[in-house]
Amino acid sequence: MGDAPADLVLRGARIVMVTTREIVTGDVSVAGGHIAAVGALAAGAVGSSTEIVDLEDRFLAPALIDPHVHLESCNLTVTELARAIVPRGVLTLCADPHEIANVLGLAGIELLVHEAAGTPLDLRLRVPGRVPALPSHLETSGGSLDDVDIAALLARDDAVALGGDINPALLLLADPETLGRIQTAISLGRTVGGQLPGMIGPPLDASVAVGLEDTHVAESVEEVVQQLRRGLRVLLTPRPDRLPPEEWPELAARVRSDGLDTRGLVLCTDDVHPHLLAREGHLDHRVRLAIASGFEPVEAIQMATVNTAQLMRMERERGAVAPGRFADLVVLDDLETFSVSSVVASGRVVARGGSLVDELPTFDHPSWARGTMRLDRPVEPDDLVLTAPNGATTVDAAVVEFGGPKTMRIASLPVVDGVVGPGDGAVRMAVVERHSGAGRTARCFVGGLGIVGGAFASTVNHDAHNIVVYGDDPADMALAANTLAAAGGGYCTVSGGRVLSLLALPIAGLLSDRPLAEVAADLEAVERSLVEDLSCTLPSRPVYALNFMCLPNIPLVGVTDHGIVETRSFALLPAVLSTGPV
Amino acid sequence: MGDAPADLVLRGARIVMVTTREIVTGDVSVAGGHIAAVGALAAGAVGSSTEIVDLEDRFLAPALIDPHVHLESCNLTVTELARAIVPRGVLTLCADPHEIANVLGLAGIELLVHEAAGTPLDLRLRVPGRVPALPSHLETSGGSLDDVDIAALLARDDAVALGGDINPALLLLADPETLGRIQTAISLGRTVGGQLPGMIGPPLDASVAVGLEDTHVAESVEEVVQQLRRGLRVLLTPRPDRLPPEEWPELAARVRSDGLDTRGLVLCTDDVHPHLLAREGHLDHRVRLAIASGFEPVEAIQMATVNTAQLMRMERERGAVAPGRFADLVVLDDLETFSVSSVVASGRVVARGGSLVDELPTFDHPSWARGTMRLDRPVEPDDLVLTAPNGATTVDAAVVEFGGPKTMRIASLPVVDGVVGPGDGAVRMAVVERHSGAGRTARCFVGGLGIVGGAFASTVNHDAHNIVVYGDDPADMALAANTLAAAGGGYCTVSGGRVLSLLALPIAGLLSDRPLAEVAADLEAVERSLVEDLSCTLPSRPVYALNFMCLPNIPLVGVTDHGIVETRSFALLPAVLSTGPV
Repeated sequence: MGDAPADLVLRGARIVMVTTREIVTGDVSVAGGHIAAVGALAAGAVGSSTEIVDLEDRFLAPALIDPHVHLESCNLTVTELARAIVPRGVLTLCADPHEIANVLGLAGIELLVHEAAGTPLDLRLRVPGRVPALPSHLETSGGSLDDVDIAALLARDDAVALGGDINPALLLLADPETLGRIQTAISLGRTVGGQLPGMIGPPLDASVAVGLEDTHVAESVEEVVQQLRRGLRVLLTPRPDRLPPEEWPELAARVRSDGLDTRGLVLCTDDVHPHLLAREGHLDHRVRLAIASGFEPVEAIQMATVNTAQLMRMERERGAVAPGRFADLVVLDDLETFSVSSVVASGRVVARGGSLVDELPTFDHPSWARGTMRLDRPVEPDDLVLTAPNGATTVDAAVVEFGGPKTMRIASLPVVDGVVGPGDGAVRMAVVERHSGAGRTARCFVGGLGIVGGAFASTVNHDAHNIVVYGDDPADMALAANTLAAAGGGYCTVSGGRVLSLLALPIAGLLSDRPLAEVAADLEAVERSLVEDLSCTLPSRPVYALNFMCLPNIPLVGVTDHGIVETRSFALLPAVLSTGPV
Repeated sequence: MGDAPADLVLRGARIVMVTTREIVTGDVSVAGGHIAAVGALAAGAVGSSTEIVDLEDRFLAPALIDPHVHLESCNLTVTELARAIVPRGVLTLCADPHEIANVLGLAGIELLVHEAAGTPLDLRLRVPGRVPALPSHLETSGGSLDDVDIAALLARDDAVALGGDINPALLLLADPETLGRIQTAISLGRTVGGQLPGMIGPPLDASVAVGLEDTHVAESVEEVVQQLRRGLRVLLTPRPDRLPPEEWPELAARVRSDGLDTRGLVLCTDDVHPHLLAREGHLDHRVRLAIASGFEPVEAIQMATVNTAQLMRMERERGAVAPGRFADLVVLDDLETFSVSSVVASGRVVARGGSLVDELPTFDHPSWARGTMRLDRPVEPDDLVLTAPNGATTVDAAVVEFGGPKTMRIASLPVVDGVVGPGDGAVRMAVVERHSGAGRTARCFVGGLGIVGGAFASTVNHDAHNIVVYGDDPADMALAANTLAAAGGGYCTVSGGRVLSLLALPIAGLLSDRPLAEVAADLEAVERSLVEDLSCTLPSRPVYALNFMCLPNIPLVGVTDHGIVETRSFALLPAVLSTGPV
């Protein structure tokens, strides 16, 4: 009203009005961290204490809201993530922390929340729907959430959703635990997320009827349209295997040609690896991709602001340059390229020219978050191989074949000195449990990866994040596993008894404690070594692809410390099926 | 999924997809009152118990949702209203029952809810924000709601909003009671409605910042756009004085030319008088008006379904032909004219060809709802006139002048036999309190109405609904008031000692207990008599216009049983200002 002076006035902005899909020139007044007025200044709005910033016709948009992100995928601390993404205009993250919860349980979630509180990031919880993903007879995790934990998380003020990474088979089987959690979320006024890749027709209808309000990982433009028609919000992020960037123009063209209402389209990041974060950006990259694909710039910004806020029931607080909302704003030099000039969070200028204005406080991660590689003895080469019954010369073994979907075939593998394989395009894979100290290890064969002449190991393996080692040489494989055990977790390649590359992830075996540039460089080195030293055949982002080899929530099979798990029946399949002549 | 047979299958529909703004041909399966599937039928969806209706390419749309309606304005019981509007495809009413609450308090609200439960209507509460509208020293009402009542109403499962008919001055003055109720609504997850006629710039910004999410009675297309930009949902209904039907094409043209996002536009009825209900329709009329004004048919239907459901947080339940929603559906013979062929409510065909399929149960209104004309003695002519001090021959009197806004002027009126006026284009107006029995009466003069050669009386007078009488002849005025007292309330005209027309409204003095056709005919007769017998000069819908003469929430003045109230200061103004020569 102008009864008291504003704290900050942004003058001469071309305001991106995401509510009407217009650009309107005007001033924005900020008081008490919130937007007080939009348009011409009220008399009395400027006083001696008012900071005035002349935007000289730059664009002013709402800060971006990420509706579905797993922070852990960037392998950074929250502080380091804030350094990277706040200057890009991303201020609100609806994070599903199921990765860290699988390692550290509720304490891991609290750790992320506490660290975020010291940054300009507004961290909201997409409460994990299922931690661990599998019952304990199928996979060993470090942390777990029961019904009471999940209800308590959903009731928190910072909770926005029941997370969307539930196996859709649980919905279709009407799993009582899953349906109960959905009802809890609905009764608490939270939204419910899902993933329905490849599902059309009756299973899609049934999943919506059960209560899902958003979905991600659609596999085609037609699937996106089918989901929108059913009232789902469709969370879009490019993936190598699902709606890659090349297919986005087809979606934009469909929207244009059919005059589709885009309020149901919502951009998200889901998983962003550190080298891609450094190279392309975060949610700002999705906005640029949408614009480049043929969406109108304001429409693309709607897909990362007001559409998201409406889905997440945070419309009163964020997602528009409108009175009463938090003054979370992005100043853009250019609309088409979404090039961020400065960022305002809760009414304070927090970033300019790609960097934070103020240094963030140091956050010390406690020792319990660092000491998560619990093995009671070093891994031995013999732990990682399958042995054949006395005298067998060949063995029919299960080979998990990389792909979308992951499939399984039977290969007849040679036996040398009582040890099966490798052969027939398949290498060894072992999953070493790292949470309890018991070190249960599953062994099988895996194809379609390459990874020969050494070993690759990782502690980022959805969802339980045990140590996974791939390769042909058991000694190199053991060295790789032990290297990660010593580093507190991470990724490494080994060949000829030498560690060739290493990205250490000492926090929960998931996060580095170093700056983005170093983490990205180390990850690039691991990926390069995978391809160059170990002849890995995965076409792009091999580490990212390998993260999902364990996960039995993605069809058709996964591999855990208990063995090969079939996706739909949750049956454990034997790694060795029969033996040849004894 | 087709695991069990559907209860009802609607085949061969052209489905109005309000989520994507498309028309898609397909089947809709219904089970347990909800939509189970949309699109091709699953195997197993049809069984021996399944009713199959072939829609033969008719359009199938979601049933209409009215986000802001005062049921009492139609002067019908809820049962009779359901008979009228269910066949028109209106199934959900977000009703602000502040009229009946001003007469009967909480019991009046419960009465409407109980009656609605016996009909196909889904009655949701827009909880009245202020009953009575004015403090008791300014107006006497029959019922009142305090903070505890309002919080309890907002917490009910059927509550959707804090009602929107609060004096905007209370927001701008930061009235603690009003702000407290808004905070209660927000904390309970309800939306908050408002009315901001004529407000642009800082007062508009401040009203949004306070928490309003919707507004109605915008006065111009520019105002609508300003409201949309600020994230408000703009509730649209044509009024003679605000955005009349003639101005809607300008709004549609603005939407088209500027490519405005229409998700914030929401059609409502607010007040529908019985003769207009019979002649034009209800919310279905607003849909037709929007289409005729230049909105795309599917866009217009969005404005009465999905847009409304999103505002009212009932998107999971209603507002789209999508799985999980209640099977509340409208079959249309034609899209452009929104001509309703049949209506499905919670999966049952409830109306065909403009009539209900089944008779509704009789609802008996209790005697306490009928006996609301509490006068301890008949009204006398002397009660209704202003007397001058002994010997005065002229008096300077306040004349409330009809218009938008209502204004006030000073007129020098003659004194005859000690009684002031009428004269100078002004007639008498008296407000007789009818709730307590004390019969406090305010007298003043009113211009711009005509109403000469007799009297017009009404018990529908926002917000306290006391008896208001207009006219030049005190005896006719007294007869008019006493006629309504005997009828239990209503509208009547009187001339030369004869009652010329009467619409009796015996329930709370607001509602008839007769069918729509009879009520509409009686109201038409009253309006005709007003114009023909009493020379009423109001251009259209005179009864409707007169309903608002008391209300001081609409600028610049109102008249209550305590006298003339100035809108912004809430000051009581004297009716007689000074006297001429004594």
